[in-house]
Order: sequence, then structure tokens, then C-alpha cells
Amino acid sequence: MKHALSEAALPRGFRFAATSCGLKKTGALDLAILSSDVTASAAAVFTQNLVVAAPVLISKEHLRMSKGRMRAVVVNAGNANCATGAAGRAAAERMAAETAKRLGYIAREVFVCSTGVIGVPLPLEKILRVLPVIARHRRPSARSFAETSLAICTTDTRPKTAAASFKTAGKRIHLVGCAKGAGMIHPNMATMLAFVATDAAIAPSLLQKTLRAVTGRTFNAISVDGDTSTNDTLLVLANGEAGAPSIKAETSAHRKFSAALEEVCRSLALQIVADGEGAQRVVEIEVRHARTEAAAKRIAETIATSPLVKTAFAGGDPNWGRIFAAAGRSGVKFDPALVDIKMAGIPVLRRGQPLAFNERVASNKLLSEHVPVVVDLHAGQAKARYWTCDFTAEYVRINASYRT
Amino acid sequence: MKHALSEAALPRGFRFAATSCGLKKTGALDLAILSSDVTASAAAVFTQNLVVAAPVLISKEHLRMSKGRMRAVVVNAGNANCATGAAGRAAAERMAAETAKRLGYIAREVFVCSTGVIGVPLPLEKILRVLPVIARHRRPSARSFAETSLAICTTDTRPKTAAASFKTAGKRIHLVGCAKGAGMIHPNMATMLAFVATDAAIAPSLLQKTLRAVTGRTFNAISVDGDTSTNDTLLVLANGEAGAPSIKAETSAHRKFSAALEEVCRSLALQIVADGEGAQRVVEIEVRHARTEAAAKRIAETIATSPLVKTAFAGGDPNWGRIFAAAGRSGVKFDPALVDIKMAGIPVLRRGQPLAFNERVASNKLLSEHVPVVVDLHAGQAKARYWTCDFTAEYVRINASYRT
Repeated sequence: MKHALSEAALPRGFRFAATSCGLKKTGALDLAILSSDVTASAAAVFTQNLVVAAPVLISKEHLRMSKGRMRAVVVNAGNANCATGAAGRAAAERMAAETAKRLGYIAREVFVCSTGVIGVPLPLEKILRVLPVIARHRRPSARSFAETSLAICTTDTRPKTAAASFKTAGKRIHLVGCAKGAGMIHPNMATMLAFVATDAAIAPSLLQKTLRAVTGRTFNAISVDGDTSTNDTLLVLANGEAGAPSIKAETSAHRKFSAALEEVCRSLALQIVADGEGAQRVVEIEVRHARTEAAAKRIAETIATSPLVKTAFAGGDPNWGRIFAAAGRSGVKFDPALVDIKMAGIPVLRRGQPLAFNERVASNKLLSEHVPVVVDLHAGQAKARYWTCDFTAEYVRINASYRT
Repeated sequence: MKHALSEAALPRGFRFAATSCGLKKTGALDLAILSSDVTASAAAVFTQNLVVAAPVLISKEHLRMSKGRMRAVVVNAGNANCATGAAGRAAAERMAAETAKRLGYIAREVFVCSTGVIGVPLPLEKILRVLPVIARHRRPSARSFAETSLAICTTDTRPKTAAASFKTAGKRIHLVGCAKGAGMIHPNMATMLAFVATDAAIAPSLLQKTLRAVTGRTFNAISVDGDTSTNDTLLVLANGEAGAPSIKAETSAHRKFSAALEEVCRSLALQIVADGEGAQRVVEIEVRHARTEAAAKRIAETIATSPLVKTAFAGGDPNWGRIFAAAGRSGVKFDPALVDIKMAGIPVLRRGQPLAFNERVASNKLLSEHVPVVVDLHAGQAKARYWTCDFTAEYVRINASYRT
């Protein structure tokens, strides 16, 4: 998305607010609230890391206790509230409870999210001081949504937002989402924070099932650096305010909703990869004609996370040997003598044999913003796609001094 | 090893020669022969990558056909002879056969190894042209061993050699080894090429068993970038020329031999990590008090291969949160609330809680050439060590333009 979302793209019945409470040293926006005017169906996918931040624990509990009926998210950037012990847990609980109080909701209706540095106690008083103000200033406006998308950024160079809509039963349903990256991006969960709001009506259990399926093809098919975070959270609030009938499994309305949710999630996921720390380009790895989708995804993921492959893309080097070698160590059995590889549309390997190509033309094509790579195994009917970014010296610069 | 090996360190009955045949554009040494005056017991460990270079296939066949009784290695750098099809296979066979002919051996007694760029046909004629010359000029000298250690280098900034000796039955046994890195370094097999020569007497089957065990604790416990190569080969020739009785399983002589072989292999493995592309320092990850050694190694490996951990070390950043998070995604179950972490001797986490420490002192200690990290799980009695290097902007520079 090159442009900010328009007012018309927003789903009905949601309000947003953001402010600067001093967690970011720069004075940038670092605290936000997203809320629904009515109780909404909620679904979420969280980090699979064993080291889990306090807000993730609290959000999981609230989602369970409320049986998927939630109303708001409070989120801060600049401090992950992770590895902060019992005090961190109490801080996350208090952050949700105080937000609920200011909004007139109950605590278990509030998700709480944090992102930033690990192991530093959360300066809760900074957050509590400004909560009454932003609670009052929530607006159903494109501008306040844009501010929310900025408030969740850490090393992101730009905000990430996406929108989709579809028509059902004579009503237009809207979905908007925002996300933040940009390091520690890897499946399970693939992004640190992403929030989707929609005025669709759908039961929590079906929403959860739909979200899981969509996540597998979007947020769980991207990688920046192979590291997963302790705070990863993707959540959806669906408040039904568009006035359409509730979406049921297997209906055409559900197919439309699922496609729209996938569109928003894929857009956010790709924006995260494109804004991967130091990244210059997005590389799309497609593995074709594998025996199973899992095998295709495993090969694509191994290629997508190889530092040697990723650094070659940083230099626009058509080094298909590294792609072939990464596939070879993926753990998936295939016959190397059957493999074709294309880079940026140029056939470089056919049936395991290198093809002659113009290096200069290839290198120019590889310097594009989006580079497709196709690995054809000629072994079956399954395929998978995976997105990664190039690995640049700038990535190292950012991460060699993140805390200091 | 800061200094070249002395004459006295060389095992008896081995000869070495190296030359420049024009595979390296710089005109540097790029072809070498290592040979034993008598038939030797041989053992080897090869890459587990599915994409395997032609010389690896031929070396495996020769080792099997000769039943572990080999005499020589011919090796080139500058071209990996991988993904080169039937022609590549024929070239590797010819390289071994011509070497055997010039030495008066038979082809199946010769290992053949190649390292360098993948997918470019091996210019065999360049090799064949100089083979007669280096075959004639093999010498049992420290200088020719040093030249061999240089001829196998690609992006290595320095040669890697190691030596050990021990006494048994009144005879002194010598072992020397050389290796080359420095990218695509990761277990199974962890190094691209490493050769060990010894005048010990030992049966091929016991030599193979001993080599496998030693490899698990040395070459298979290091990582530069998580990528495995298509050409990785570690091999040992033991010619018995020291005159001591043949080493049998479970004897004190075997224990001494195994320890000496481990000393040589660990030294070579650590030299490879220290010379990892762009590396400034070696980081030693030790996981203590795990339930099993496999669990300890898996956690250590996950930490050692995390780009976020490795870039933090590039900047001397005591970012223990990334170490904790990498352990958490390793797939091993443990209780985060029990974990202690020390970086460069400084306790930074105790029982899952961050400790206060002097950032400046910590950062200074982290800028050393060798940085120990200890992760204590307080869960059992097993432990494992793993070595990695820091991930620098120089790594990216090297690998963004390796082919061009």
C-alpha cells in the first residue's frame, strides 16, 4: 500500500487512538488503542516460542475467558515486557484492566500487546498516565488508524496497512489491518504484531479456524531472519456492524470473507518482508511439482532462510548453486537430476544441468524490488510459496547495535 | 596455530605438493596432492546434502571399492565440480585416475576433492597439464604441507593446520591436518574440506568409527551460516609408518589416538569458525544441565545459528534476550523460569530474571576474540558445546558478490 487508507475503507464501529508516552526515546508514537463499539468475535494466533512475553500470556487468558468475545486492544512499542517475571505479568494485567476501565469494558474483553526490547521492566506508570487521554480521543477515522499503525512500529521504516472489502446479502463488508515487523520475522508466528478489524459478523470458532488456515499461507510463509519473537500476535476483531447476516462455514459469504482476510494478511505479510531490516527486495520462492505441499513448503523455507542465498540476492548475484544446495539440505528427498530452476524468469538450471545465460541481464533483473524464483522438482503435483528478503550489510548494522 | 608446523610434527611416510594451475583467477596455489608412501587405512565423512558434487561421489566409491585402503588425495580449489552432470563425473574420475597413474597407484586408492564455485564445468585440461609436475615434486616437508594447506583455500583469509602426537609402545605417533572453510559451514558435514594424515597403525573400520565419534564433537558442532556444502569432505589416512603396533578398540593406545584425533579436529574446526567469512570472534555456546545431550546440542545449535544472536555479537551487544528467545524456539521443552545465562562470564539472567550489570564492562568483554556463553537449564545432567562466529557486514559483502 503506497497510500494511506481512506475513510471509506474502514469497517464500521471501530475507533482508534495513539499517543507518545515516552517509551520510545525519540518521542515518537508508542501507545495505541483499537476498540470496537460493540462486543466483537475475536480470534488470534500467538508465538510458538517457549519464551513468551507477559502480554501474550494475558491476551491468551482473556481470549479463553471471554470465549472469543472481545472489544479492544491496547498496545505499546519500545518495550516487549518479556523476561520481566511476575512484575511483568502484573504490569500486562494492569495495562489491560486500566484500559478496560477507561473504555467502560471489562478486563477480559481487552487484548494487551507489547513489542520492543526484551528483559527491561515495563515503565507502566508512563502508560497509565496517558491512558485516560487516548481512551477519550479514540476516533473512527482514517487518520487515527494511520496513527495506530505508526505507534506499533519499532525498527520498521514505514507503517504497514492493508484493506479489503466484499459484498454479501446486499451489504459491503470492510476489513482493515495494520502490522509491524521487521526483524525476528519467521513462522509460528511469522510477524510480531498484526491487527485486523472487520465489520463482518462471524462466530468466534469459525473466525479462529479461518484465521489459522489463512495464516499458514501468509504470515507463516514469510521469513526475514529465521528468528521467532517472544511477542508475536496476530488478532482479528469482527464486530458485525456492517449489518450482514452472520457468516457460516462453507457458504459463499465465508469463501468471500476468507479470501478478503487472506488478501489483507498476505499484503501485511509481504509489507513486513519488504521492510525486513535492511532489505532491498522481496524474493518469492515457489517450489512446484513436489510430492506434498509440506515438502514443497519445507524446501521453499530452507531456501528462503539460507544466509548464503539471501546475501546473493543482496548483491543481485544469479548464484543458483546456493539455491540448489539449500534445497539439497532441506531434509526432503528429491532427484537433483530432475530439477529446473528459474531466477527472475531466467532458466538457469534444467534437469539438474546449468544453462548458459547472460550474467549482466540476469543481474539487472535480480536487482528488482520483487524477484520470483521457481524451483521445479518434477516429482508430483503439490506446490508452495514462501517470501523472504535479501540479507544486507544494513541488516547487520541495525542488529549489531539494537540495544545500544 | 599461529605458526606453521615444524618438520618434526609431520607423520612419517607422507608427501605433499601444490601448484597453481590457473583455476584461481589470482594465480594462487589451487591444486595439491597428499600421498602416503605405503597403502594406508582410510576413513571419511562426507556432506549429507542431497546435491552432491561429483568428486564426493567418486571418493565414496573409491573408499568402498578399496575397502578403506587408500594412498592419496588430489584436490583443487576454485571450482567445486558440482551440478556439472555426467561431464563433471567423468572429470572427477579422470582426475583421480591420472593422479594414480602419475603416482604409480591404482585409481581406487585416490580420493578426489574439489571446492569453489558450483555449476561451472571443471577445466580438467588445466589440472591434467600440471599433474605430472606436482606428482614428481611431492616432498615429505613442512613447506610442501604448508603449500597444500594454502592450495585448498577459497575465501579463507588464512590456512588452517593442526598437529598432535602421543607415545605408544615406545613409539611417537604424529597426526597433522589441514582444512579449508569458510562459508557454507554447518554440521553434516561441518567443513568443506579437511585432511588428516597420521603414521598410526589402525584398521579402517575402527578408524571410521573413531572418526565419526570425533566429528560429532568437533566439525559437527560448529556453524558459520547454517548452510551445508555440496562438497564437504573430512578424511583421514593412517599409514602405520611410525612402527607401533596396530591400535585396537578399547585399548589405552586407542584412547590416546582418539584424543589426539579430537585435538586436531577441534583445532581445525575452531580455526574454520574463527575464519568464518567476515568473522571477528568465536562464540562458544555451552548448554548445561539439559535432560539429554541431544537436547543440549539442539538448543546450543539454535542459538549458534540465530542471525539475531550472531549480529548482536558483531556489535558486542550483551543482548541476552535474543539468546533466551532462540533457546525458546529450539523445539526443546524447558522451563524458562529456571534458566540462567552468562555472557563472557557475566551473569545476565538468573532463574529467568534479568540481572543488573555494567553495560560498558559487558560490551568490552564481548569484543574479545573468544566469547563464552553459558545457558544453564537446571533440568538434568547433560551438556553440549557449539561454536559459532559473529555475523558481520563483511560476511554480507563477501557473499553478495562471490561469483562476480
